[in-house]
Amino acid sequence: MQNIIIASTSTVHGSGYLEYIIQDLKAFFKNADTILFIPYARPGGISHEDYTRLANKAFAKINIKVKGIHEFYNPAQAIKNAQGIFVGGGNTFVLTNQLYKHNLIDILKQTVKNGTPYLGTSAGSNICGLTIKTTNDMPIVFPPSFNALGLVPFNINPHYLDPLANSKHMGETRETRIKEFHHFNTPPVIGLREGSWLHVTQNSIILKGPLTARVFEYNKVPYEVETETQLNQLK
Amino acid sequence: MQNIIIASTSTVHGSGYLEYIIQDLKAFFKNADTILFIPYARPGGISHEDYTRLANKAFAKINIKVKGIHEFYNPAQAIKNAQGIFVGGGNTFVLTNQLYKHNLIDILKQTVKNGTPYLGTSAGSNICGLTIKTTNDMPIVFPPSFNALGLVPFNINPHYLDPLANSKHMGETRETRIKEFHHFNTPPVIGLREGSWLHVTQNSIILKGPLTARVFEYNKVPYEVETETQLNQLK
Repeated sequence: MQNIIIASTSTVHGSGYLEYIIQDLKAFFKNADTILFIPYARPGGISHEDYTRLANKAFAKINIKVKGIHEFYNPAQAIKNAQGIFVGGGNTFVLTNQLYKHNLIDILKQTVKNGTPYLGTSAGSNICGLTIKTTNDMPIVFPPSFNALGLVPFNINPHYLDPLANSKHMGETRETRIKEFHHFNTPPVIGLREGSWLHVTQNSIILKGPLTARVFEYNKVPYEVETETQLNQLK
Repeated sequence: MQNIIIASTSTVHGSGYLEYIIQDLKAFFKNADTILFIPYARPGGISHEDYTRLANKAFAKINIKVKGIHEFYNPAQAIKNAQGIFVGGGNTFVLTNQLYKHNLIDILKQTVKNGTPYLGTSAGSNICGLTIKTTNDMPIVFPPSFNALGLVPFNINPHYLDPLANSKHMGETRETRIKEFHHFNTPPVIGLREGSWLHVTQNSIILKGPLTARVFEYNKVPYEVETETQLNQLK
């Protein structure tokens, strides 16, 4: 029943918010006239109100209204009743912390498992994985757990970045970081480049968008998969 | 009494491990013939043994022996008895988790406060701050707390990186991330570029190395400080 888009980013370089994917979202949310927006990740620290306005503006182009979860007295009920759900990017720790604080992890997971269409971008995609242990974000708040929704049997690394040629910076590359993850954890990780997304349905996980994705499996050499690759064997 | 070096990195581009700072370390550890190495951060997931060998090789050049904390039956006692302490870089979450697991946070803090010279690089520098909330590392393990040693009244951002001109990547810049930190936390953050370090003594915190550092204070415009600047007013 589930129907999920796990997108690397909300925005690709040189294009507006959600612009690169908006026609796909029109089809994805075809049965919704209003969707529920979860603005908890607060990119750049912006308010829930301002963030919801941004989402509203993008979805207005495909005639879908957006309501922020902070507008509801009972956020769990808002999730249950939603025609569609969008969890935006920002800081994954802030997002996860808020979901735990409002006791929304289980209800969100169950609602999406039951078929309510879910769109995640960036932080909203990180939480679709087993844990948030492969986020790129700074740990600016301490959530009660790194366990996430587990809507897919692996972890996501959004905004996946290839090593920069000629860099003199000694900080770890993204690939090095994910390899370190695999010294302490065994689930696969999908590095989704900006412009890529996964479309997850009941029996299928397909890579979408113009780019390849990089797959990191425990004790294997990382490899690239082409767009339209079926990834439902990965676990 | 305290005597601490908080270094951005162990290695600058094009130079060997600790090479850029080794003569300063000779003076810093002048009263030690053996120092205690804490290899818990395990860069790239290497073993405690291999990491200690690396540190040993660097310190051999200034005739200092290095013993890894994992070689001791009682790590707390090893910290208490050390002539000097070096906590190497790697993953800050792994390091912090191990320190909590072995119940070493308080003893390490007290020992350094009492005057045992402490060198931190990268992750080993992050833990000198109030919290590890400004680390750049991937949260590959879940530590019981983000609270760190608090040897200085602010946070450290090691490997500080200026925004890349012409980047088409939509992930957050370091400055954006630290500004997000200040939406949820008030302590200052010092962005230490690779090659910079802080020398902390009882009444003084001085920026060392060839570069400026970037200081982020709550509700202030970030600013640069020159090398040799006294930073002990910052809190």
